[in-house]
Amino acid sequence: MFRPEIKVLDCTIRDGGLANDSHFTLETVRGVYKACCEARIDYVELGYRNSKKMFSPAEFGLWRFCDEDDLKRAVDGIENQGTKVSVMQDAHKAEAADLLPKDQSVATLVRVATYVKDIDKAIALENAAHDKGYETTINVMSISVESDWELDPALEQIAKETHVVACYVVDSFGALYSEQVDYFVDKYRRILPKNVEVGVHFHNNQQLAFANTIEGIIRGANFLDSTVYGLGRAAGNCPTELLLGFLKNPKFNIRPIFDCVANTVIPLQKQVEWGYMVPHMITGILNQHPRAAMAMLKGADRLKYRQFYDQMLELVDR
Amino acid sequence: MFRPEIKVLDCTIRDGGLANDSHFTLETVRGVYKACCEARIDYVELGYRNSKKMFSPAEFGLWRFCDEDDLKRAVDGIENQGTKVSVMQDAHKAEAADLLPKDQSVATLVRVATYVKDIDKAIALENAAHDKGYETTINVMSISVESDWELDPALEQIAKETHVVACYVVDSFGALYSEQVDYFVDKYRRILPKNVEVGVHFHNNQQLAFANTIEGIIRGANFLDSTVYGLGRAAGNCPTELLLGFLKNPKFNIRPIFDCVANTVIPLQKQVEWGYMVPHMITGILNQHPRAAMAMLKGADRLKYRQFYDQMLELVDR
Repeated sequence: MFRPEIKVLDCTIRDGGLANDSHFTLETVRGVYKACCEARIDYVELGYRNSKKMFSPAEFGLWRFCDEDDLKRAVDGIENQGTKVSVMQDAHKAEAADLLPKDQSVATLVRVATYVKDIDKAIALENAAHDKGYETTINVMSISVESDWELDPALEQIAKETHVVACYVVDSFGALYSEQVDYFVDKYRRILPKNVEVGVHFHNNQQLAFANTIEGIIRGANFLDSTVYGLGRAAGNCPTELLLGFLKNPKFNIRPIFDCVANTVIPLQKQVEWGYMVPHMITGILNQHPRAAMAMLKGADRLKYRQFYDQMLELVDR
Repeated sequence: MFRPEIKVLDCTIRDGGLANDSHFTLETVRGVYKACCEARIDYVELGYRNSKKMFSPAEFGLWRFCDEDDLKRAVDGIENQGTKVSVMQDAHKAEAADLLPKDQSVATLVRVATYVKDIDKAIALENAAHDKGYETTINVMSISVESDWELDPALEQIAKETHVVACYVVDSFGALYSEQVDYFVDKYRRILPKNVEVGVHFHNNQQLAFANTIEGIIRGANFLDSTVYGLGRAAGNCPTELLLGFLKNPKFNIRPIFDCVANTVIPLQKQVEWGYMVPHMITGILNQHPRAAMAMLKGADRLKYRQFYDQMLELVDR
């Protein structure tokens, strides 16, 4: 028996935008959107609604801002049988004023990404989005380096002060093993009210993004993030096609995602590099931000794994 | 606390040989052997000891046969702090007469790979290897398509009629999810005597080889197969570097494996293609042998995933 509460959120364009400064062509965005609609995925996240004061539109692509006109162009004329559009706001890099009232927007869901330290900013953004009529979530990033004595009160605040439909465990560093997934999902489930779903968002540094998503499902998580062919910064994400291959809900259709991999995502490999590579694995096992691995891979020493490992060990020493 | 019973067996050359008809250069084999010795991996499997009546030496490389002289050349002069050499025999493609007595061999361990239907052949080979002084295992292949009413009696035979140190769950098709890993490891644990370890060997069609290995560990499996950088037929295997990054036994040294990835295995990408690809994922989710995906990927239609999926669905229909 499938679990009808399970929702799949494809964030290929949004999270993939961290790999190319959100410089996707309109054709690419429409390709992903169309595939997700045909696959009957529950939500498709088309980018960030971040502040133009924090990100220069000269440097970043349209999908870092998701102006309503651009969102309209992304979805225009594409048949939609219930797939909802999501945008993400970074708690420390977005403004409530950038959101139109829901009835003037293509988006239905606003997800606020935050570090625990910015939880009050996140809650303010969430409250504003909720007041404007959106469904909302809060996504707690870099969970693998947060301390319980800070995380637990933050979750309690989310429980009391927001109207989120889901709150996410986000393993930004790709550091978690299944035991830690159990730990965090159990904690969320314990602290959050029953009507708030637990969401999971995993990275593939250790080839565990899909496995950890399954582990989250087993533990009760019902909001699941994925990207087509795992497109994403560094090692990438839980692949949408694997998730649809696993889920039993007969409404999902995996075929359009296959087409999207072949026609829309694989061509991006010419401009963006992602996937399992040893430097990404090293930052994952050492519970570090992927930026050092990304920088190392751009240099002439991109195969000097041992040297990189020893440098990262130095950095981890406290 | 680490579990000292856990043994890592690197089968880069043996299992990787299914991707290139065992045509590795001596330099490559020595590179992998040296890295495994330096990493203090427990066993390193340098190939098959299969019959030259079943495989033509004109077609297959040296490591399909592992003549003792070739094994000696592979290990000659390389410092070894306890890493044991393994060879594999296919139950239906090998002969007991091809094994020298243990004291005349470089190998310590002989692993017999078998389908359930060939269990009597496997046991005969195992018995012969044991009598000649080797440690032995039996590795039950394609476990995801075996029926309990055949598998259970085969395990009971192994329990009664052999002296194996371990008996393996081999997910040849990369079809298993964590729940099935639990199912099989629990079954093996229940049927096999206490002094026989459970082994696990997983393929990466669904990016689950490493995750399923961890699941096996959690469930009590103590013999773990892996290959450097996941080298292997089709989607490949559980990467040795990920496994060493996870295991806590301080004897392991991950650095030589990093060097081996960079210097020995990545150069092989010019002649062998392996890793996560949609056709391999499709055979995995449909619980099929990888051969159809491998054939499809050699053709001009290698991106026609939807067509391949529909063809495979036809094939699965009974």
